[in-house]
Amino acid sequence: MQFPIVLGVSARHAHLCREHMDILFGKDSELHVKKKLGQPGQFASEEQITLVTEKSEMKLRILGPLHPETQIELSLTDARKIGLEPPVRISGDIQGSAGGKIIGPKGEVELEEGIIIAARHVHLYPETAEKYGLKNGDIVDLVMEGERALILHNTLVREGVKHADEAHIDTDEANACHLDSGVMVTVVKK
Amino acid sequence: MQFPIVLGVSARHAHLCREHMDILFGKDSELHVKKKLGQPGQFASEEQITLVTEKSEMKLRILGPLHPETQIELSLTDARKIGLEPPVRISGDIQGSAGGKIIGPKGEVELEEGIIIAARHVHLYPETAEKYGLKNGDIVDLVMEGERALILHNTLVREGVKHADEAHIDTDEANACHLDSGVMVTVVKK
Repeated sequence: MQFPIVLGVSARHAHLCREHMDILFGKDSELHVKKKLGQPGQFASEEQITLVTEKSEMKLRILGPLHPETQIELSLTDARKIGLEPPVRISGDIQGSAGGKIIGPKGEVELEEGIIIAARHVHLYPETAEKYGLKNGDIVDLVMEGERALILHNTLVREGVKHADEAHIDTDEANACHLDSGVMVTVVKK
Repeated sequence: MQFPIVLGVSARHAHLCREHMDILFGKDSELHVKKKLGQPGQFASEEQITLVTEKSEMKLRILGPLHPETQIELSLTDARKIGLEPPVRISGDIQGSAGGKIIGPKGEVELEEGIIIAARHVHLYPETAEKYGLKNGDIVDLVMEGERALILHNTLVREGVKHADEAHIDTDEANACHLDSGVMVTVVKK
């Protein structure tokens, strides 16, 4: 079974919880939409924070809306540059992940955990998932064409009514196959 | 047909020709071995140059020995950071590739071409190639295991007496599969 899906490439970014938003940007501060993203209701905000480690520092754009827990997603290239070794995790699974200090215009927060390398995944709307016999938690391949053609195994299906059909990979994976957001790739389930 | 091969990950680097070595480091200057590499006679040198574009600049280690033509190999991540769009090419195929200014302690050179993104390839000693029915120019897959398991298509075989068995990928490809130099991966020819 296989079907085409649009590719979305995620650069490094942060999700903030309400508590940390208050500390970093001021009590009851809000994120301001810079650009809407592929997933319903999600957006890149005007706001940025700085992630600081002993080795280096790095600007991170905040994606909205606010999350239940603060989470930072880096590529492995980013992580090496800043001297961190975050685990590869699916979004939301941050227990025991890497920590670091984040700084905003109004304050700073020392994160004990929350920094991950995002595991690649495919967002599917329930009707799409049903059509292809897939369900939340399934593992599929992503087939990428072109001069740097490759197949990404271990790609997790995330199905739900808040999900638009889109395959998400990070910048390392995108650069390895020399593709960018908006192209069509192929989901394969053996 | 498939067989294991050791992985070598290439970070960005430069190869210099004699003429450019003279300009950048002084007449009849020589490279000094910092670390021997997997391929016979090749080494990372103590010497570094700086690649400068309108957007940014970047340090590059020089790999020895000297080459017939100056060639700079970047990852796509590096290229984006510095504002270049080099083509994906096999080493030595630099006609019409990207240009830029390189600066050394004694001078600078404006390269019209020579900057590429290295196409992934497998170095094979002739006996190994013969054993597996492969020859120079063949295309194979590289199969990488692990949590970020993937298959890299379009991998070129480079066979010759100066080649030690080794699969070469760049840092983007290595980070996409979360592997580093020294691990065993699998060559597959369908």
